[in-house]
Amino acid sequence: MEERQKHVPRDPEQVKLLKNRLSRMIGQLNGIGRMLDDNRYCGDILMQVAAVESALQNFGYIVLQSHMESCVAEELKEGNPQIMAETMDLIKKLK
Amino acid sequence: MEERQKHVPRDPEQVKLLKNRLSRMIGQLNGIGRMLDDNRYCGDILMQVAAVESALQNFGYIVLQSHMESCVAEELKEGNPQIMAETMDLIKKLK
Amino acid sequence: MEERQKHVPRDPEQVKLLKNRLSRMIGQLNGIGRMLDDNRYCGDILMQVAAVESALQNFGYIVLQSHMESCVAEELKEGNPQIMAETMDLIKKLK
Amino acid sequence: MEERQKHVPRDPEQVKLLKNRLSRMIGQLNGIGRMLDDNRYCGDILMQVAAVESALQNFGYIVLQSHMESCVAEELKEGNPQIMAETMDLIKKLK
Repeated sequence: MEERQKHVPRDPEQVKLLKNRLSRMIGQLNGIGRMLDDNRYCGDILMQVAAVESALQNFGYIVLQSHMESCVAEELKEGNPQIMAETMDLIKKLK
Repeated sequence: MEERQKHVPRDPEQVKLLKNRLSRMIGQLNGIGRMLDDNRYCGDILMQVAAVESALQNFGYIVLQSHMESCVAEELKEGNPQIMAETMDLIKKLK
Repeated sequence: MEERQKHVPRDPEQVKLLKNRLSRMIGQLNGIGRMLDDNRYCGDILMQVAAVESALQNFGYIVLQSHMESCVAEELKEGNPQIMAETMDLIKKLK
Repeated sequence: MEERQKHVPRDPEQVKLLKNRLSRMIGQLNGIGRMLDDNRYCGDILMQVAAVESALQNFGYIVLQSHMESCVAEELKEGNPQIMAETMDLIKKLK
């Protein structure tokens, strides 16, 4: 896949916040691995899976909203209306 | 939260397979972190988020199916019908 | 598709409750049709779509729980463990 | 709720297409009601519920895309950036 760059660089504060969220999710996934090693009850493991699913969905929403407020708004101003169809494809792929 | 154990230990082969899946998801999340550092295009980042969402959903399905085939089936045989309501609560929480 | 019957008939009270829910959803979909005729704001229409989506998801959960408490429990008692794999396929298809 | 209008009227062709989809979903919900009356197998009913869920989700996507291509693009041009946050709220509510 060709590596596309974001035209306007991301706010360093937002990058930091997003990377904190990634670290927390990685910690939760490692925790699920330990629960498997400890033969923990399936229901408790599934509760943790559901927690990471929510965290990941929220992460996606933050990136999507910032995408819409920067790149999508920019493309529209530059008279590139098919950005909306591309954005819809992303929305359909996200949970 | 009280730590509940699974009565019948998990198949070591399945634990290995599930832990491989966790490692792969952790690798993907680390990859998203690097994409943020490299100021990569939001749309490409969101595609990766969607990929981890699917991987996590499939992971949850595997644990749920094994839960239903072992713990839930066991509880039903022991005459504990409310396990079905508890299982429904898990299903509602998963994406 | 071959027409399969439910072995144990449904509770008439539950059939009534489920049919009330279907009527309400049909009423909501008709309402969305009138909103289109009245050129109502997309955001308001989408709120109604989201409301029917939730109502439909809850309807599915009620049928699924009753399925698990009757047919699935029955099949397990009769020594038919692959009912769990079939139930997982249903769960994956529902939102 | 205050009745808000769409500024630019919808394309009559799209209204017709959307109303056809609504009619089809209403037909499917009526079909589910008949399946309940006929004591049909839960699994078959749930397959129909899943089909209506998909139809409703696609209906929502069509309205959302047209919202983004008309109202949202319009508001952005008029210098109203908070339309993106409002649109995100809609996206989060839809399945």
